[in-house]
Amino acid sequence: MSSIEFKVLAEDGRSYARRGELKTRRNSFITPVFMPVGTQATVKGLTTPELKNCGAEVILCNAYHLYLRPGHDIIKEAGGLHKFMNWPKSILTDSGGFQVFSLAKLNSIDDEGCVFQSHIDGSYHQFTPEKSMDVQMDLGADIIMAFDQCVGYPVDYEEARQAVVRTSSWAERCLEAHKNSGQALFGIVQGNVFPDLRLDSLNDLKKMGFPGYAIGGLSVGEPREDMYEILDVLAPHLPAEKPRYLMGVGTPEDLLEGIYRGMDMFDCVFPTRTGRTGSIFTRTGRINIRNARYARDFTPMDPNCACSACQNYSRAYIHHLFKQKEIVGLRLSSYHNLYFLFNIMEQAREAIDQGLFSQYKDDFLYSYRGKM
Amino acid sequence: MSSIEFKVLAEDGRSYARRGELKTRRNSFITPVFMPVGTQATVKGLTTPELKNCGAEVILCNAYHLYLRPGHDIIKEAGGLHKFMNWPKSILTDSGGFQVFSLAKLNSIDDEGCVFQSHIDGSYHQFTPEKSMDVQMDLGADIIMAFDQCVGYPVDYEEARQAVVRTSSWAERCLEAHKNSGQALFGIVQGNVFPDLRLDSLNDLKKMGFPGYAIGGLSVGEPREDMYEILDVLAPHLPAEKPRYLMGVGTPEDLLEGIYRGMDMFDCVFPTRTGRTGSIFTRTGRINIRNARYARDFTPMDPNCACSACQNYSRAYIHHLFKQKEIVGLRLSSYHNLYFLFNIMEQAREAIDQGLFSQYKDDFLYSYRGKM
Repeated sequence: MSSIEFKVLAEDGRSYARRGELKTRRNSFITPVFMPVGTQATVKGLTTPELKNCGAEVILCNAYHLYLRPGHDIIKEAGGLHKFMNWPKSILTDSGGFQVFSLAKLNSIDDEGCVFQSHIDGSYHQFTPEKSMDVQMDLGADIIMAFDQCVGYPVDYEEARQAVVRTSSWAERCLEAHKNSGQALFGIVQGNVFPDLRLDSLNDLKKMGFPGYAIGGLSVGEPREDMYEILDVLAPHLPAEKPRYLMGVGTPEDLLEGIYRGMDMFDCVFPTRTGRTGSIFTRTGRINIRNARYARDFTPMDPNCACSACQNYSRAYIHHLFKQKEIVGLRLSSYHNLYFLFNIMEQAREAIDQGLFSQYKDDFLYSYRGKM
Repeated sequence: MSSIEFKVLAEDGRSYARRGELKTRRNSFITPVFMPVGTQATVKGLTTPELKNCGAEVILCNAYHLYLRPGHDIIKEAGGLHKFMNWPKSILTDSGGFQVFSLAKLNSIDDEGCVFQSHIDGSYHQFTPEKSMDVQMDLGADIIMAFDQCVGYPVDYEEARQAVVRTSSWAERCLEAHKNSGQALFGIVQGNVFPDLRLDSLNDLKKMGFPGYAIGGLSVGEPREDMYEILDVLAPHLPAEKPRYLMGVGTPEDLLEGIYRGMDMFDCVFPTRTGRTGSIFTRTGRINIRNARYARDFTPMDPNCACSACQNYSRAYIHHLFKQKEIVGLRLSSYHNLYFLFNIMEQAREAIDQGLFSQYKDDFLYSYRGKM
């Protein structure tokens, strides 16, 4: 087989939403799919068996972080990322492009690559497309990402245009440098909030031919409507037979809006990061479990949820754990929040099958935004 | 049935070590038994299903902490501590005596009880034997402790003597105030490091008749040899047909020395507290997983351990998690350390059955102290 196989199984018909099957060398799973983020080879707070129980089929790890700590050489020596972290299902690694521009102190960037200082200790490093491929090949994920230049928001047109040109040239170098037939390399569409740049970027990548296309550089501070508009512009032009990955999204709302616009894959720290602060998803919106009103509330975090945390523990107990800064509190909230998102994805997939996705989305959002 | 049933099943013969069965209204388990500490209604880092998998049959919670946060009234309203924290097996609660003297700011103490300030917010509270019984009845543990006066180390004889007199008088009031036939109330022997005071204290309690006897006020800073000496003094005088609980112990060494001297029950934060710092039990002694030497060590935490953490994760991975302050690191180390202690207890019980406890203890300590 090639690195991955992707098949569209059903289309909503009234939107770009589609249900598909993505098969990597590790496992096969149904899209649209949400990927929990395990930045440093661990989804914060949760063990890998818990991730499986919770419904995860594929997780995201970061080449940038793992290159810095513990070092891709150590992970290679361990037998690769799957073995190192004890995760037998699929892994996708990000190329480091986004982190180099957002997290590290960027010292210089040119056509060759970029020099940055580690956000941990200030040490100097160079990332090039070739280096990113080397690191990601050592890590051994099943899907890896091309090294791209991500620009922030707001940015002027000319700077965004140059980043598209560079991203295309780097994508070509990634394709050349990538030597692992079991690993799928995705291209990343840039172009910020400029529709014509987005289409230029996509066309460049389509000419090269990737097994999957990611939309990068969104959810970086631009108004939500701008993000939706860019997805609307891209949707008709993305190759129908390839998986489409909307990077860094998201919230329950954005997941559904992304699916509506034909996206198949998503990742975000949101469910676990907010979970650790005590912010908990429910069908009627997020609640802050630290609020005093939950001190004597003996109902589950979300009364409609079937997850093991909601089946076994009350809001009052989890409130107590958060007030006392007990680790188990954030474990339960992180687990529930992920389960909640997986559950939305499952319901979305079913709705697509029935040609009822738009209605599902509207119903969910109506309830979630507290208008019930 | 009465509150608990206890039966000695086997005696080592060459030491005071004995194997027994303790039956509470929740479950029945074999002694000697180690009780993990869930101070605030959670064993730090671990969920209750994990505690079960790991081998826990009975855990300890603290009346003092739960009285302050979330409040015994809330736990009573939740349906009791078992339901609040989702733990179906046995729970023992400490009376608050030790915490009032060690953790809180003690304002005054007299025969009536003591007034202290919360270690959290400085608020004023009074604990009396009757109050402690009320709190512990509300919490609803299966075994509860009499309210005692614990003195520190070093202490002069006269002060220790007065504490014994007061502890005896308070024990009597606890017996009177305690109104829950399903709950077993244990007396606590005090007397610091003075053999004659220890025997006086025990004799006072024996006259009152408790279903179990605890040895309190040890492991509070005195030399290890003093603790062993007190246990040697008490061993022949403790009622053979009642369980004996050595409070606040301990380390692998002290558990075995306590069993050797006839102790049946133990509790300590040691395995989880040291685990959270990266200190990990192995058959050949403790190791600090944060040490650079483990960065590329792909063997398990303890190569001889059958726990799920050792079966699935390497030292290199856990080293990485600790260096990155990732929660999963301390979850795995806490789990392993508890499993390790449960395993020692199981082997000790088997050795007692075979009349080989002394040899087991010597062999274990020889290896554990790194003399192999």
